[in-house]
Amino acid sequence: MSLQKLQTRIEQANSMVCVGLDPDYDKLPERFNSEDTPLFEFNKWIIDQTYQSVCAYKPNTAFYEAQGEHGWYQLRLTMEYLSKNYPDIFTICDAKRADIGNTNNGYVQAIFDDLGFDAITLHPYLGQEALQPFLDRADKTCIILCKTSNPGSDEFQDMELDLRRVPLWHYVAEQVADKWNQNQNCMLVTGATYPAQLKQIRQIVGSMPLLVPGIGAQGGDLQAVLEAGLSEDKKGLVINSSRGIIFADNPAEAVEQLKRKIELFVGD
Amino acid sequence: MSLQKLQTRIEQANSMVCVGLDPDYDKLPERFNSEDTPLFEFNKWIIDQTYQSVCAYKPNTAFYEAQGEHGWYQLRLTMEYLSKNYPDIFTICDAKRADIGNTNNGYVQAIFDDLGFDAITLHPYLGQEALQPFLDRADKTCIILCKTSNPGSDEFQDMELDLRRVPLWHYVAEQVADKWNQNQNCMLVTGATYPAQLKQIRQIVGSMPLLVPGIGAQGGDLQAVLEAGLSEDKKGLVINSSRGIIFADNPAEAVEQLKRKIELFVGD
Repeated sequence: MSLQKLQTRIEQANSMVCVGLDPDYDKLPERFNSEDTPLFEFNKWIIDQTYQSVCAYKPNTAFYEAQGEHGWYQLRLTMEYLSKNYPDIFTICDAKRADIGNTNNGYVQAIFDDLGFDAITLHPYLGQEALQPFLDRADKTCIILCKTSNPGSDEFQDMELDLRRVPLWHYVAEQVADKWNQNQNCMLVTGATYPAQLKQIRQIVGSMPLLVPGIGAQGGDLQAVLEAGLSEDKKGLVINSSRGIIFADNPAEAVEQLKRKIELFVGD
Repeated sequence: MSLQKLQTRIEQANSMVCVGLDPDYDKLPERFNSEDTPLFEFNKWIIDQTYQSVCAYKPNTAFYEAQGEHGWYQLRLTMEYLSKNYPDIFTICDAKRADIGNTNNGYVQAIFDDLGFDAITLHPYLGQEALQPFLDRADKTCIILCKTSNPGSDEFQDMELDLRRVPLWHYVAEQVADKWNQNQNCMLVTGATYPAQLKQIRQIVGSMPLLVPGIGAQGGDLQAVLEAGLSEDKKGLVINSSRGIIFADNPAEAVEQLKRKIELFVGD
């Protein structure tokens, strides 16, 4: 079961930090431009200097698809490199997929079986019935978008539902915690930019791990996230930083700093 | 503007039929198994015998990603074949994407610019602000999931909102029609399996074209769809069939039959 892998890695590395492997081609350091596989070479460089301080890596498919089939190939090389050299690190495919039932089998095959990811991010809009092919994979983890980090996430996610007078994101959290999580293989995405909502989501889902993007470039406040989001035993968060680490002057230092700030808080 | 291309093609071909190019590898006729590019060869075979009767083709990315980078390559070959031989036919990438703002640029580059699709399907959950990179492309079409065809689409889409006592799908339709459609480049996905909702959506969006999946294998009733979904001038529907045509004993006959049934109704 892949959530056990995540917990073990968090303890081993003593880190809740996830690094987003989002190699925006136009932003890569110039020396990678001449490589045949620039996205992969850049990822390898990032991984080799950050692996000790991370619990997870999270490539976002948009940056690979932007380079067509050669980008997909470099995503594969990245996964092969991770599974060969750092097999204990949890891997999240930030693909934000979701189709109707039988079509999702294609994504299950692509992301879980072919590329070998431990987890995938998913849109909730089509409901549990549609996502069952992902949820049925007890050996993998399904990370459902709940309250996303972007400024306009209120448009639908914050709409109050008649029945219960709770916003949509609240109901998504309840449904996932109460019904979708039969295989104990669900997590939720809750943006660092909304700590008050994160706090409520923590109350709804108990000890379920939450993936928290939005620290760094998006402006999320780490202290507020930790205060709001940790579970009772001071666990349960996977805190992602992408641009703030991979495009830092010194990625190794940037990830170590983030890890230490979390440690300092949790150790209090 | 690509919606003009769609309208022109509907009139030229006198057809509202869209064929889903969903080449599930395990279901391909045996003779394609020995090909180097079986998905593409199958698509080519389908396209050559159906093109006269269709307004659009709609490949779903799940079936290509299931074959890794070689699948993505075959999606590219399919698009190259269409643009070279049948440039007047509208092309929809059924990718069901949606990420936060800057990340969506990767999908814009991949689907609109690199592969050259006229349109893409999108999840609404993150809101207009996140989807702006797609919406800003006045030369392309954004097809937003509204009421999806799957049996479990009620879980979130049918939840009534407090403010207005309308379900979520109703509010999505309103927002897209009133706010997202500044470039007149939006469509909605409304499943054939829910004709009553389709009727309401038609009332909300005026003459906006609707993409209607769910005829055929999913059990949607064509007659009910046409009664509920046509605009006042008997236009505005793009009716998709995937498995019902591409895996029919005679795909050419299957698509022609569907086209004629629609003609018969519209001609009444």
